[in-house]
Amino acid sequence: MPTIVVDVMPKAELLDPQGKATTGALDRLGHGKFQNVRIGKRFEFAVEGEVTDAVIAEVRQVADEILSNAVIEDVVAISVDGVPVADGAAR
Amino acid sequence: MPTIVVDVMPKAELLDPQGKATTGALDRLGHGKFQNVRIGKRFEFAVEGEVTDAVIAEVRQVADEILSNAVIEDVVAISVDGVPVADGAAR
Repeated sequence: MPTIVVDVMPKAELLDPQGKATTGALDRLGHGKFQNVRIGKRFEFAVEGEVTDAVIAEVRQVADEILSNAVIEDVVAISVDGVPVADGAAR
Repeated sequence: MPTIVVDVMPKAELLDPQGKATTGALDRLGHGKFQNVRIGKRFEFAVEGEVTDAVIAEVRQVADEILSNAVIEDVVAISVDGVPVADGAAR
């Protein structure tokens, strides 16, 4: 079955306390060159049957309405078996 | 500054209760064609200076030792400015 990946990140204008804590931890552990860590979610799921344009449209809808919270998050990438089908810029 | 993305997923042999709940929710909402949802993390961060092989080695180490818990998670992909530098199969 084809595998769909949906990437969701906190919006750029929002604080990301978990990411801030990770940035601080990296710095304390000697990895200060890595900065501004932000932590989002990666959803992986299988889809039954062929991935038609209609299925991709349904994935976009599910990504926007169910997998992410548009108030605080952006869907930054959607891919099918590793091939990007949509990103923030293209939508 | 170059952007690094590290993707971390729960190991395949582990239950993912959050993913299971999401699969159930999708089914109830009429999206039953999407199955076996698993939810991982996506780390995005900037790196100071040029991305040399040494920096990539350091990113791998940070991904394995700090950003993920090897007991329950796999680092499934690392990319620099969108170009993959390592994945589970290659490591």
